[in-house]
Amino acid sequence: MESKVGRQLPDDIMNELGFKPYETTDFGDPVIQRKAPKVHASTGEGKVVDSLEEVIRKTVRDGMTISFHHHFRGGDYVFNKVMRVIIDAGYRDLTLAPSSLTGVMNDTVVEAIKKGVVTNITSSGMRGSLGDAVSHGLLKNPVIFRSHGGRARAIENGDINIDVAFLGVPNSDEMGNANGMEGKSAFGSLGYALVDAAYADTVVLVTDDIRPYPNTPASIKQSQVDYVVKVDEVGDPDKIGSGATRFTKDPKELKIAKSVNGVIVNSPYFKDGFSFQTGSGGAALAVTRFLRQSMIDNGIKASFALGGITKPTVDLLEEGLIGKVMDVQDFDKGAATSMRQNPGQQEIDASWYADPANKGAMVDKLDVAILSALEIDTDFNVNVMAGSDGVIRGAIGGHQDAATAKLTIISAPLVRGRIATVVPKVTTVVTPGDSVDVLVTEVGIAINPKRQDLMQALGNIPGLPVYTIQQLQERAEKMLGTPEPLKFTDRTVALIEYRDGTIIDQIRQVAE
Amino acid sequence: MESKVGRQLPDDIMNELGFKPYETTDFGDPVIQRKAPKVHASTGEGKVVDSLEEVIRKTVRDGMTISFHHHFRGGDYVFNKVMRVIIDAGYRDLTLAPSSLTGVMNDTVVEAIKKGVVTNITSSGMRGSLGDAVSHGLLKNPVIFRSHGGRARAIENGDINIDVAFLGVPNSDEMGNANGMEGKSAFGSLGYALVDAAYADTVVLVTDDIRPYPNTPASIKQSQVDYVVKVDEVGDPDKIGSGATRFTKDPKELKIAKSVNGVIVNSPYFKDGFSFQTGSGGAALAVTRFLRQSMIDNGIKASFALGGITKPTVDLLEEGLIGKVMDVQDFDKGAATSMRQNPGQQEIDASWYADPANKGAMVDKLDVAILSALEIDTDFNVNVMAGSDGVIRGAIGGHQDAATAKLTIISAPLVRGRIATVVPKVTTVVTPGDSVDVLVTEVGIAINPKRQDLMQALGNIPGLPVYTIQQLQERAEKMLGTPEPLKFTDRTVALIEYRDGTIIDQIRQVAE
Repeated sequence: MESKVGRQLPDDIMNELGFKPYETTDFGDPVIQRKAPKVHASTGEGKVVDSLEEVIRKTVRDGMTISFHHHFRGGDYVFNKVMRVIIDAGYRDLTLAPSSLTGVMNDTVVEAIKKGVVTNITSSGMRGSLGDAVSHGLLKNPVIFRSHGGRARAIENGDINIDVAFLGVPNSDEMGNANGMEGKSAFGSLGYALVDAAYADTVVLVTDDIRPYPNTPASIKQSQVDYVVKVDEVGDPDKIGSGATRFTKDPKELKIAKSVNGVIVNSPYFKDGFSFQTGSGGAALAVTRFLRQSMIDNGIKASFALGGITKPTVDLLEEGLIGKVMDVQDFDKGAATSMRQNPGQQEIDASWYADPANKGAMVDKLDVAILSALEIDTDFNVNVMAGSDGVIRGAIGGHQDAATAKLTIISAPLVRGRIATVVPKVTTVVTPGDSVDVLVTEVGIAINPKRQDLMQALGNIPGLPVYTIQQLQERAEKMLGTPEPLKFTDRTVALIEYRDGTIIDQIRQVAE
Repeated sequence: MESKVGRQLPDDIMNELGFKPYETTDFGDPVIQRKAPKVHASTGEGKVVDSLEEVIRKTVRDGMTISFHHHFRGGDYVFNKVMRVIIDAGYRDLTLAPSSLTGVMNDTVVEAIKKGVVTNITSSGMRGSLGDAVSHGLLKNPVIFRSHGGRARAIENGDINIDVAFLGVPNSDEMGNANGMEGKSAFGSLGYALVDAAYADTVVLVTDDIRPYPNTPASIKQSQVDYVVKVDEVGDPDKIGSGATRFTKDPKELKIAKSVNGVIVNSPYFKDGFSFQTGSGGAALAVTRFLRQSMIDNGIKASFALGGITKPTVDLLEEGLIGKVMDVQDFDKGAATSMRQNPGQQEIDASWYADPANKGAMVDKLDVAILSALEIDTDFNVNVMAGSDGVIRGAIGGHQDAATAKLTIISAPLVRGRIATVVPKVTTVVTPGDSVDVLVTEVGIAINPKRQDLMQALGNIPGLPVYTIQQLQERAEKMLGTPEPLKFTDRTVALIEYRDGTIIDQIRQVAE
């Protein structure tokens, strides 16, 4: 079978797992029976357990699905500590269902796969040695990649049944009242983990700071928590955020950022009360800086900024240029630690952020989304998952979700070194071109032909040359030549789920 | 069949409704499959509906279960506005499942029953003309009275399936982000309503103040809300709280309050970090005042105060005598409006407050509960539901829930006018004597014989004469004589559920 973006999908696997191919970005308005957890009632006596060994012995069984969050990012100690015990105990056939897998987890996951401890994975993404190993066929079953909103949906409707969630927190009391915004390992919003806390059958908090009862504000509540484990350290504070956020000095990135701002400012959406999501990285920060100036110059204020939050976005809140910061995760320490002080910086869970199956998510009200791409093709389909060599090295994150914004801008260089970004066909489709409106490169912009209104608005802006996306693709190809086609085996190593639960593409094992 | 407190229960009704008789205050540690709502997915377009008529036409069908909260208390306009439309539209056989029914709702409910619109009710309580009508057999089926914790449990496990929740709020945005703590009709904590918002299939917010999107803090989240209806006024601000809280001047009440404080201060629980729940009313405020002085005199601070909150309790928080105020509802305007300012005043939902079927509730950590009684008998069983004439005029509230505290004190006068409070057998058992530790009256205290430790601690305190509860009962009887036994018909008009879902007693129709 084939998804609507023309990608061949593996019939046998699709049928076995009960998946349907991607059809449309329109979720419609179905009535969905949610799945509730099985709750082990308790008065909370004995929730505090001395060791990970003990709590894992009490809770984990072969074949279970276990989950983690990635809010500690590069500073995470919890995942490796828990998985060390699980691997050493010799568990088998676990499904790993974290909100995402960061680089510090790679070696552990590869080991767990090699030893048969982990045979299934669902995640937002993976990179480095793990992505490489999976692309080379190490994992028994295909990875299911899901967006942050898609994961919330899958947990809520029972597609992902979490048996045990191991959730690292920078503070908790003995009953499990915890938040992410206080303490030396504070990471800010617990956004992704809040879904696990609400839906996992068993919830284990892992912390290095047990506080007097009752600990508030309680983003995770005692009524959701089965066990609290004290460990030496949950994370490396210096690596949790990206540290001081640096404005890019790369002239190409600056040029793109300026053009992105030009697209926003000249679009019909740039008016008082507009909303936006920028994401992280030096270029995103540059966009935020340009946008700030344009807002001041035009006397325009935003109603909210959404998604993963950086300090420069919080600065706009404090400056009064943004009404609210709706915060599902924090990318740096400044954003993480400001949450407790700023009443306008509201922690939101992944469902509220981006779940297509609830009664309205924040992304449904989003005007402008600025997103990145590893590749974008002449149908505006975007790949943020597989490199140009076909190897997994990315994450969906909120890409598919935020792309449902009224104005979705892909910000990307035409080429990266010897590799084209704008291509005839992306290696892997993650976000369908249907939800992408404008591509901004350093040489000019391309507008999705279905957006004739934007053609009108953006067609004649000085400094913003408009090309067809075919022209940009040809230009890249002229610069770099036509690459050899990639070689894959027939085996499927991963499925890319669209946020609605259908499959939009597969990733096949790379041929050596 | 019979409940463990010796009350005869109606076999036919018990079997038909699948109820079991009350056995024990110990909930144990069962694994419980929770019930999840059916969610109508939406992007939120068209959530704002112009009229109650329209939203009711879209959502309500004959035979459904509809719910309300009672946080507006005596100032509630929402219940009567919604029910007016429902009655006039001629719906049939609805089940009414509010968190409680306050006096302003009585006439409407009586009319709805008379017209066959409402044929089932579950509530925390009822009073006045409604209690009278139900006690005289007006309602087709027996009322199920549930405690606040028991209602949360019943909703979570599906014993109560709410089809449509109509939740009045003092503010909301167009998507349904709302809180109870801001605006002219602010009532503070949305505690009871949060359970409805999370579990009802359809959630309708009714507000008189639609605020810019996104409205935060959002105690109720847009992801839970189907419709937002704007009405002229949701409540009478002057009647939502009890206004300025007044300290009792009644010498008998003062004496009881002082003795309650004596029991607390001389108990083993009065030490740094203790916790307490006092409830509302002039006597409760007096207890708070005495307790404050004892805490200052002894250099003792409380870790938390729990339950329905009054301004004097918030004052203790601001004074630093209490660490946290865990707030499921607010009894006065001072407590309601301080929630936004005091980070230590934490809004909690009814499940977190008192649900025996979750992973630990606040009441499980409660040291001292001060509770009232209409009657208490020589087995320490307490009645807060039926008057001495057998007519329904009360509410369980959090009585059964807070009575699980380590030290449960019933504060009550020996007699009220010509009516004894301490009796051989209470008219209706609401809270089993097993969970009651000390009775405090104006003439002295009685200690539950199962608490020999308290006998030791409280046996020789000057000004706190200790009697057996039989002695107190005999003294009341000597003062007033033996009353005529009440006359009831055989018909059951209400069942009293214990917080665990078993039935502890029934209320029968009064004989004319």
